[in-house]
Amino acid sequence: MSKPLKFVGLCGSLRKASRNAGLLRYAGSHVPDGVSFEVAEVGDLPFYNGDIAEKPAAVQRLVEQLRSADALVIACPEYNYSMAPALKNALDWASREAESPLAGKPLAIMGAGGGMGTSRAQYHLRQTCVFLDLRPLNKPEVFANAFTASFNEAGDLVDEKLQELIRQQLQVLAAAV
Amino acid sequence: MSKPLKFVGLCGSLRKASRNAGLLRYAGSHVPDGVSFEVAEVGDLPFYNGDIAEKPAAVQRLVEQLRSADALVIACPEYNYSMAPALKNALDWASREAESPLAGKPLAIMGAGGGMGTSRAQYHLRQTCVFLDLRPLNKPEVFANAFTASFNEAGDLVDEKLQELIRQQLQVLAAAV
Amino acid sequence: MSKPLKFVGLCGSLRKASRNAGLLRYAGSHVPDGVSFEVAEVGDLPFYNGDIAEKPAAVQRLVEQLRSADALVIACPEYNYSMAPALKNALDWASREAESPLAGKPLAIMGAGGGMGTSRAQYHLRQTCVFLDLRPLNKPEVFANAFTASFNEAGDLVDEKLQELIRQQLQVLAAAV
Amino acid sequence: MSKPLKFVGLCGSLRKASRNAGLLRYAGSHVPDGVSFEVAEVGDLPFYNGDIAEKPAAVQRLVEQLRSADALVIACPEYNYSMAPALKNALDWASREAESPLAGKPLAIMGAGGGMGTSRAQYHLRQTCVFLDLRPLNKPEVFANAFTASFNEAGDLVDEKLQELIRQQLQVLAAAV
Repeated sequence: MSKPLKFVGLCGSLRKASRNAGLLRYAGSHVPDGVSFEVAEVGDLPFYNGDIAEKPAAVQRLVEQLRSADALVIACPEYNYSMAPALKNALDWASREAESPLAGKPLAIMGAGGGMGTSRAQYHLRQTCVFLDLRPLNKPEVFANAFTASFNEAGDLVDEKLQELIRQQLQVLAAAV
Repeated sequence: MSKPLKFVGLCGSLRKASRNAGLLRYAGSHVPDGVSFEVAEVGDLPFYNGDIAEKPAAVQRLVEQLRSADALVIACPEYNYSMAPALKNALDWASREAESPLAGKPLAIMGAGGGMGTSRAQYHLRQTCVFLDLRPLNKPEVFANAFTASFNEAGDLVDEKLQELIRQQLQVLAAAV
Repeated sequence: MSKPLKFVGLCGSLRKASRNAGLLRYAGSHVPDGVSFEVAEVGDLPFYNGDIAEKPAAVQRLVEQLRSADALVIACPEYNYSMAPALKNALDWASREAESPLAGKPLAIMGAGGGMGTSRAQYHLRQTCVFLDLRPLNKPEVFANAFTASFNEAGDLVDEKLQELIRQQLQVLAAAV
Repeated sequence: MSKPLKFVGLCGSLRKASRNAGLLRYAGSHVPDGVSFEVAEVGDLPFYNGDIAEKPAAVQRLVEQLRSADALVIACPEYNYSMAPALKNALDWASREAESPLAGKPLAIMGAGGGMGTSRAQYHLRQTCVFLDLRPLNKPEVFANAFTASFNEAGDLVDEKLQELIRQQLQVLAAAV
């Protein structure tokens, strides 16, 4: 029997009815058997600043959650053709630990946005992963159009094809650990 | 006689002795004749969040400064192979205005970082500029190594070649307005 | 009266019924009044190789056409998330001229591909333009889905919205010269 | 005992005294014990063209070599801030096989160029790898300055630190298979 796995999710959008949060919510309730899932908060961190001498409590919490993860799931919005600052800032803080809570961990990326499905932001995130030594899955890529009936008004993912794609992605993620 | 121009600077690093702030400081005191210069604050903005109904005062100030600019100067650090969140967040807030304070304006980009001189972050910023309709200069590109004697301990730029390059870049920027 | 302008087009796809060629064909027959248009061949160039001492005739022809252009129009396919080699190779050869036939010229980019409309390749092309000192228009961007009824079997563009978008892009290009 | 491994190398530069060929030559003669190495030719392929009905012999050879590889080693030059067409074209041809000769294989990337060590091209190559399902190593990255005494006139790598880095990279590559 394989040991239980833990996935930790990060959501770059802070809106309540965020479609990216909706993707992550769907993922969290459809992880493979034997996998636990929790979302780490990124919206309450200060901007990274090398002059901050004492690690903020919110950063400490984030780092511990990331450290406990076997793999990550990132919902990556696209703002102006690149990443959301709240998400990038969380990764930047995590990267400053003496012992990385990220290095070597598999990562599933998904995103909801305009017609390109946040792909432009996702490729920037993938470049960041090179330095962080995160291991994003090549396939499947998950690109959702946020402005369609794929989501309901609360931001829940209701499109069955995308649901299937995310379930498949999580299986690949578990296999990659 | 040409009318006086105004350049507005943004610095992605929040550290006191930041080398990126040092680049911007040098630029600000060496603008071409007839050009004024001021730096807009980016570190006191909240993360962009579509649920925030009332525009924060810090955002309002930033937008007004950007609106008053004929051209922009961005000091672009590189964090984990992409942009600094504080800088990106300022651009994201500015992009939400009904009438863009950025569209069509020329932009000079400079950065101090490791051996690549923040180039990886600068190319991400350039992609963001496509959507924002900012017009980054193609040349000269300014890549500074932050970990050399190009800067003193206070973060001031003391390398003469880089100083010359920045003065030249500002001339090109003024000509592009 | 403004002087007559000349646009030169490059197509990265070599297929006969190429949708990218179809975009360029539509563009060529809908340039603004007073603009001439011709397509430069890229498929008959050898791979760039610094050891080739004598400039091949096909390169010479290409360079002369580019030199005669006031602005460029590139149909940019996407192969494996980046540019088509035949197109990139043409730009690489042109970049080796002592006096650049490209520097400072405005450029309109369009592309037909999968669901992302060759956007991934177009952003790579934009990065190449920084070094070449080409001036790609920020807007409008033209992303066409090659696998829809937007094109007929011969590769002709028949979608009216995309036709309108290209006509608009060519107007912006003429204004940028 | 582990089975013997085979690495196949691709070099994007076609020059005789190419520094990129020099990197690959060094790699080829310093693979870990039990690993064989051969270089596949990319300069004699035609440009990919969907209209070519019969697979050219040079493509067939390339595909067979790639298929026989347990892992790849790519020497990636940078031309105008992106990949060399000869290299990209080889990957494009390989991607058209019904059964991919690339999917799932680990990849080591190295490059010799200007001050950025071909990093701009390498990040474009990494984006291409997402679609090809190649698995580029995150670390170590190998960036060599071609215009220094790191290479002799024949293009051989003589810098000891870079030699050590490449030997280390090949160890990581073997472990990733």
